[in-house]
Amino acid sequence: MKTIKGSVTAPKGFMASGVNCGIKKRKLDLALILSGVPAHAAGVCTKNTVKAAPVLLTGNNLKDGWAQAIIANSGNANCLNGRDGMKWAKDTAKAVSSGTGIAIDDVLVASTGIIGKPLPVERITSAVPSLVKGLGKKGELNAAKAIMTTDLYDKRIAVAVNIGGKTVKIGGIAKGSGMICPNMATMLCFITTDADIEQGALKASLKDAVEDSFNMVTVDGDMSTNDTVLVLANGLAKNRRIKYGSGHYEVFYGALSHVMACLAKEVARDGEGATKFVEINVSGLKSRQDARKMAMEIANSSLVKTAIAGEDPNIGRIASSAGASGVKFDESKMEISLNGIKIVSCGKARFGLRPEAKKSMKGRDIKIKVDLKSGKGSATAWTCDLTEGYIRINARYN
Amino acid sequence: MKTIKGSVTAPKGFMASGVNCGIKKRKLDLALILSGVPAHAAGVCTKNTVKAAPVLLTGNNLKDGWAQAIIANSGNANCLNGRDGMKWAKDTAKAVSSGTGIAIDDVLVASTGIIGKPLPVERITSAVPSLVKGLGKKGELNAAKAIMTTDLYDKRIAVAVNIGGKTVKIGGIAKGSGMICPNMATMLCFITTDADIEQGALKASLKDAVEDSFNMVTVDGDMSTNDTVLVLANGLAKNRRIKYGSGHYEVFYGALSHVMACLAKEVARDGEGATKFVEINVSGLKSRQDARKMAMEIANSSLVKTAIAGEDPNIGRIASSAGASGVKFDESKMEISLNGIKIVSCGKARFGLRPEAKKSMKGRDIKIKVDLKSGKGSATAWTCDLTEGYIRINARYN
Repeated sequence: MKTIKGSVTAPKGFMASGVNCGIKKRKLDLALILSGVPAHAAGVCTKNTVKAAPVLLTGNNLKDGWAQAIIANSGNANCLNGRDGMKWAKDTAKAVSSGTGIAIDDVLVASTGIIGKPLPVERITSAVPSLVKGLGKKGELNAAKAIMTTDLYDKRIAVAVNIGGKTVKIGGIAKGSGMICPNMATMLCFITTDADIEQGALKASLKDAVEDSFNMVTVDGDMSTNDTVLVLANGLAKNRRIKYGSGHYEVFYGALSHVMACLAKEVARDGEGATKFVEINVSGLKSRQDARKMAMEIANSSLVKTAIAGEDPNIGRIASSAGASGVKFDESKMEISLNGIKIVSCGKARFGLRPEAKKSMKGRDIKIKVDLKSGKGSATAWTCDLTEGYIRINARYN
Repeated sequence: MKTIKGSVTAPKGFMASGVNCGIKKRKLDLALILSGVPAHAAGVCTKNTVKAAPVLLTGNNLKDGWAQAIIANSGNANCLNGRDGMKWAKDTAKAVSSGTGIAIDDVLVASTGIIGKPLPVERITSAVPSLVKGLGKKGELNAAKAIMTTDLYDKRIAVAVNIGGKTVKIGGIAKGSGMICPNMATMLCFITTDADIEQGALKASLKDAVEDSFNMVTVDGDMSTNDTVLVLANGLAKNRRIKYGSGHYEVFYGALSHVMACLAKEVARDGEGATKFVEINVSGLKSRQDARKMAMEIANSSLVKTAIAGEDPNIGRIASSAGASGVKFDESKMEISLNGIKIVSCGKARFGLRPEAKKSMKGRDIKIKVDLKSGKGSATAWTCDLTEGYIRINARYN
């Protein structure tokens, strides 16, 4: 596997574009990704009981396993808009269908932004012709920018792998950066690939890759109403069709999960107000499930995150949130390392190592390792620190 | 029931005192509460897997249902100190026993403060004589101050009720103010009463009252290693002994739960960095359990709490966190009121009411009501807003 230039238009047959349609004043706010031919499609969406209209529409349009276009707007979530919301989402899909000739139920729709504000759908539908006109290989950067909300930078990646002698490419774009939590948060991620893969295998690979990428990222513990991860696979790489569980599937899955983990980490790194990127690895528990739970509990702790912002090696907060996770363990076996410095050993704080540990926290990247020495279950979560910047963005925005 | 002056020394036979023993530089940091006669005792402690040594010791000393003194220090949690921690907690109890003649296993010990720092126990044991000397009815204020950490003010209350012609008094002190979350957080609460009550009834009443008071308070979603709620009932009111489930029990329980709810609300009001006090009432769900879960999810949402700090009627964040709670409901029935203004009706945002709702948020007290119109389950949670002040306190303290 090698990293290549670009993102969603790196795989054969994909084009993209991004424009300003007027939901936001000046910034790009409408993105389109399109495959020249119908593609196998799969998606994972928020587990929030309150789902935005586009999430429901996209769920429906994915049922047959095929899609050809993704349209996404930022600046308005089209959520809590009652029946109007669904009409507006459908109008959006219809405009893309009219402008491109793609069947209406092969258009997937996503939105992100303010909840509970009427969507000015006519701005979207009026902009679709110029959006379609702008489609091209180079449009991926504008598409990545158009889905941003409070993100400071666009998140893009593409890789190439060899599958049975053919080069298969996978590209992706994503946006964060608040309301980021397990089960995917205000997070949009669109993946394209020219792989020829069975629809069931595509669906399974996406679901598994989400578990270890976007579902292990948290910025603020808030799960959104609009989270959507979509993948389109158009088969133009002409590889032998990938079957679930085969050797080729493993290669494809490895590349897909790499792409998604990279994008997920970027979401944490660019969390609202973040000054530090934090990786939390938990090991030595009975199950992977337990390790995931504990890693996410630590990642979601406001006290751990503020301590990191203050460059304080506050192991008490790490140990306390590990214990608050509900996972049972033997405290006397607990080992905690901070940037490689073992500050808790056999459940006892090594207070003398504080100065050294504090010094290690000057950098931007912080690594926390918690080992309970009681099994093979392990997991890794990613988050950022919690700063005054987060509060300013979320309290003083209006 | 009427509110009376004072706190833990209001009931007959109780004395208290507070001193500085040198864990903190100048502030009071050591408190003692004592009953002149042995008392029925009960306690509820943190559910954190990592428990501080004094929590474990107090759990042991409560097993026989009797106690006579509570000693508590602030500034050091005596947690993550391995076997030394338990020795230090026992040394503390022993010093009180030596100084007062109370049996060592009738001394309950509590600590709050920094985790993972050796406890300078000799400072505590050296201070016990002056602590004992200072015991008196007036010592309750110093005791309340001595358990404070980042609390801005002491939290005290006392009430009197008539039980079968006798006046029964209940008094309490508590401290917050970070690491406050369901299952009690870095929260200490000590209750005294002169009621004559069966030990089993006392235990049951404390457990139930915690559920609707301290377990419904959150500041930052972090559960601590040291949370402890203790009650001593010395029987000196000479009422007919209160039996579980009797009419007198209901009167006693009403007064106890009032005392604890008042203290719990003060903990939220004085949350770290708080500028607003927030009450969240959820109703119309199938069970009380579901309502509690949803109320606490909303109360723990960083996005809801920052919106309140910014006086923004951001119903999207309220609806989204309601949906993120895992409780299933029919979105089209959802009704949300903010300070009495119905901003979501039949699941649809009433965007035009924003200016009015925004205006209502100028005050210090914020009321959120979420009604799902699908059952009789309801619950109330309390929290505060999330401000730059919280970050400063928790990131820039060292």
